[in-house]
Amino acid sequence: MQIVIIGSGNVAYHMAKAFVLNNIPLAQVFGRNEKDLNKISEELKVPFSTEKLENADLYIICVSDNSVETISEIITKKDCLVAHTSGSLPKETLKGEYRKSSLYPLQTFSKSKELEYEKIPFFIETENEEDKKVLFEIATKISRNVMESTYEKRKYIHLTAVFACNFVNHLFSRAKEISDSQEIPFDYFLPLIDETVQKIHEIEPKSAQTGPAVRNDKRVLELHEQLLQDESLEIYKIMNHSIQKMYNL
Amino acid sequence: MQIVIIGSGNVAYHMAKAFVLNNIPLAQVFGRNEKDLNKISEELKVPFSTEKLENADLYIICVSDNSVETISEIITKKDCLVAHTSGSLPKETLKGEYRKSSLYPLQTFSKSKELEYEKIPFFIETENEEDKKVLFEIATKISRNVMESTYEKRKYIHLTAVFACNFVNHLFSRAKEISDSQEIPFDYFLPLIDETVQKIHEIEPKSAQTGPAVRNDKRVLELHEQLLQDESLEIYKIMNHSIQKMYNL
Repeated sequence: MQIVIIGSGNVAYHMAKAFVLNNIPLAQVFGRNEKDLNKISEELKVPFSTEKLENADLYIICVSDNSVETISEIITKKDCLVAHTSGSLPKETLKGEYRKSSLYPLQTFSKSKELEYEKIPFFIETENEEDKKVLFEIATKISRNVMESTYEKRKYIHLTAVFACNFVNHLFSRAKEISDSQEIPFDYFLPLIDETVQKIHEIEPKSAQTGPAVRNDKRVLELHEQLLQDESLEIYKIMNHSIQKMYNL
Repeated sequence: MQIVIIGSGNVAYHMAKAFVLNNIPLAQVFGRNEKDLNKISEELKVPFSTEKLENADLYIICVSDNSVETISEIITKKDCLVAHTSGSLPKETLKGEYRKSSLYPLQTFSKSKELEYEKIPFFIETENEEDKKVLFEIATKISRNVMESTYEKRKYIHLTAVFACNFVNHLFSRAKEISDSQEIPFDYFLPLIDETVQKIHEIEPKSAQTGPAVRNDKRVLELHEQLLQDESLEIYKIMNHSIQKMYNL
């Protein structure tokens, strides 16, 4: 089976690496950014091109949401399967006469960061049973966690991920802004952050909540508001309001 | 040196345990809740009382902020050192003729969760050098990370912790609410959450930001807003606004 990965960013790099590490041969990595493709190609010993798309049975499109439709049009072959890797696009975004599918890896990808691919949940949607079997076989070589998902469900998976990952990371950014302003090294907070996350492996997050809002400690809440401004103050107020709503305080 | 811990909650339990595990003898654990004290006392083999406070050289008050002042008044001895463990109270909250101090452990404490005490940063504030030396000696037996901190600085440390821990945990609660509503097991998100946190051990959170807001993907942002309501929608809007502000989008 000939497989081509399309894209040269973080997702393309990690998907290609996951394939190669699990002995699933790749016929090509195809994209626009020659420099990035060259790096992927050298590291993973996979051919690349920026011009001629290789003939394949399966194309996996790993580009940003905005580019999926345009990129999908370059695949003119009909008898093949095409998968995109987006959490928030229906498989019908793919434009072509091939069979359409979605292969969504639930993870945050940064190029410079090693990942344990076997732990990444993969969500699969296809047009028929045959294609489903193909994607399951491939994905289960990479990960222990492969499931089906409709577009309806995938949208909510992606939305949940935005709260649990993107927003959490932004809270770290705002937290660091506060500690930086007082010349407090952000490293001090890493054991606390690690513990916050380890906890929810054992306890429901709702039961693990601590802090002034859930204690309804008005003195501390007011004190903190005086120390904050702009976006951080807005976040502070909304988050406390939301905590107090959740616990009926 | 005679040391007494006052309190019977999560902080008192973990502080007492950290002392005992590091061979720092405790003369007593004192508090109001006999049942909880009895459990601590049995597990750690430390005497407890709800009535008669033991004579000591150092009292460590581990109760909620609201109760620190009241509890501090039961210590009538003058020639002793008293420390509270609050992140957001000045040491002057302690009411008595003894020497006042603060011993602030930067961590989130849940009784049922084991902790690596040697990683917890401790922040110390005292009235004089002698007392500082005493608290440093004790805290460094527990942790590798012991520092001085003024009340001014400690307030900001606590505020940063609210963003990096309390608010992060609340995002997990709201995320779980979303995934629960679609019968998507929250366990699926644990590898993503773990990776989100592992990342910031290596990369600045500002450089690690991913997601639709930092990509300025208006289609996804609008799609998500349609899936949300109430507090989660408010959080969604404020967080995206704050992300876009931070990256000048």
